[in-house]
Amino acid sequence: MATATLSKEMLDAHPWPGEIDRDVLARCIQECVACAQSCTACADASLAEEDVVDMRRTIRLCLDCADICEATGRVLTRQTDFEARLSKTQLSACRQECASCAEECERHAEHHEHCRICAEECRRCEEACSALLEAME
Amino acid sequence: MATATLSKEMLDAHPWPGEIDRDVLARCIQECVACAQSCTACADASLAEEDVVDMRRTIRLCLDCADICEATGRVLTRQTDFEARLSKTQLSACRQECASCAEECERHAEHHEHCRICAEECRRCEEACSALLEAME
Amino acid sequence: MATATLSKEMLDAHPWPGEIDRDVLARCIQECVACAQSCTACADASLAEEDVVDMRRTIRLCLDCADICEATGRVLTRQTDFEARLSKTQLSACRQECASCAEECERHAEHHEHCRICAEECRRCEEACSALLEAME
Amino acid sequence: MATATLSKEMLDAHPWPGEIDRDVLARCIQECVACAQSCTACADASLAEEDVVDMRRTIRLCLDCADICEATGRVLTRQTDFEARLSKTQLSACRQECASCAEECERHAEHHEHCRICAEECRRCEEACSALLEAME
Repeated sequence: MATATLSKEMLDAHPWPGEIDRDVLARCIQECVACAQSCTACADASLAEEDVVDMRRTIRLCLDCADICEATGRVLTRQTDFEARLSKTQLSACRQECASCAEECERHAEHHEHCRICAEECRRCEEACSALLEAME
Repeated sequence: MATATLSKEMLDAHPWPGEIDRDVLARCIQECVACAQSCTACADASLAEEDVVDMRRTIRLCLDCADICEATGRVLTRQTDFEARLSKTQLSACRQECASCAEECERHAEHHEHCRICAEECRRCEEACSALLEAME
Repeated sequence: MATATLSKEMLDAHPWPGEIDRDVLARCIQECVACAQSCTACADASLAEEDVVDMRRTIRLCLDCADICEATGRVLTRQTDFEARLSKTQLSACRQECASCAEECERHAEHHEHCRICAEECRRCEEACSALLEAME
Repeated sequence: MATATLSKEMLDAHPWPGEIDRDVLARCIQECVACAQSCTACADASLAEEDVVDMRRTIRLCLDCADICEATGRVLTRQTDFEARLSKTQLSACRQECASCAEECERHAEHHEHCRICAEECRRCEEACSALLEAME
């Protein structure tokens, strides 16, 4: 089962789902999970590249982005006593980190396919965070 | 993009991919990520149920399973200097945890839809771990 | 070895340590790690209490706080290509989460010793985040 | 407060503490948390070294070890419905990972102080896992 469908199904099965649009929320959870996965893989692939010396900043940002996306995905998944106020700052931190990581991976996208894929995933996650922040206004 | 496709694409883009069958590996990474997500959601939904007192064991096992699946998914994603020997024990721990969590969630599957979905995801992850352990022989 | 000493020793051993006051930074890393540990334990102890129904909000906030503190501790630990700008939003999210979790745990501090200890640890982490944010100005 | 004292205090405050020797358990939780912290820092410091090309294996093992120690520390912290059987495989995986990471860091201990500190912390965690596995027999 794709993670997207799973996130939506699980949100629908919660006894007290929060008041936020569940499609927007499920999409953001899915992108956080996918972005964490993509960044973990890109940090590792970058480490194995011949030009690893030039990839240090990418590796560092990908490791940070993986950790932040993973934590954000978990926080957003929890619907019990949900409070938008509390999730918003974490969501903003996640959006900022995804943007920074995307920017750096885009610089290497032409010569490293994993950076191209990762940059695209970071941009999708950045957008999903923006959409959810808007839905929380 | 579904996490499954993403995992496979990222493995293919690694400069030194390991020697394990990449379809089996990508499927296992995908299921670890999906199972972590499902268990985080099921622990939270169980906490909100009226019969939370009877759900304590489920919550505890789901929290453990989420942590173990997340760590296992990260370890399996890394292909640099991959050594099957090192991943095997973690993979066995993950398989065992998924089986225990599935067993407990199955006990609540009839009255809680989130437990039914979570039990199925845990079983899929258990099978994917078994398949990867076999591919590593 | 206490985590505090370890964090400081590891920062001192980095080939390109960042420009931030290392004592303030090491203290914040230490408190993030300790707070994640305390919140994981308090969520679990609260789940086992007879009044678990009244502890739902505590459990949810402790689980979030553990995830956010852990991610923040990892991000702050990384000194390669350190950029204060990037860590600040995550640090603010962590400070806010610690404050919310402390507030809720304080409400239960008289009847649950684990909540009293956890609230104190959350307040120490909140202060350490504030001190580091000031040092980053 | 040092993490060691915190872990012990929190275990003592649990309404249904497990049957395992709490000093041995608290020490193992503390070492898992400290080892995760040390490995995150050592991976990052190794990435910044001039000989990063020779540090790839260390970085990979440190990242894995951090993830596995963190998950193991969380699982061991949970006392609700504790079952030694379930923790044992994870604990064995953690001990094996710490041993492998220590071995690799020891190879770089003479020229990189962070590897020397990290190798010592990994060995302490390996021993604490062994002691807890023995206490669980």
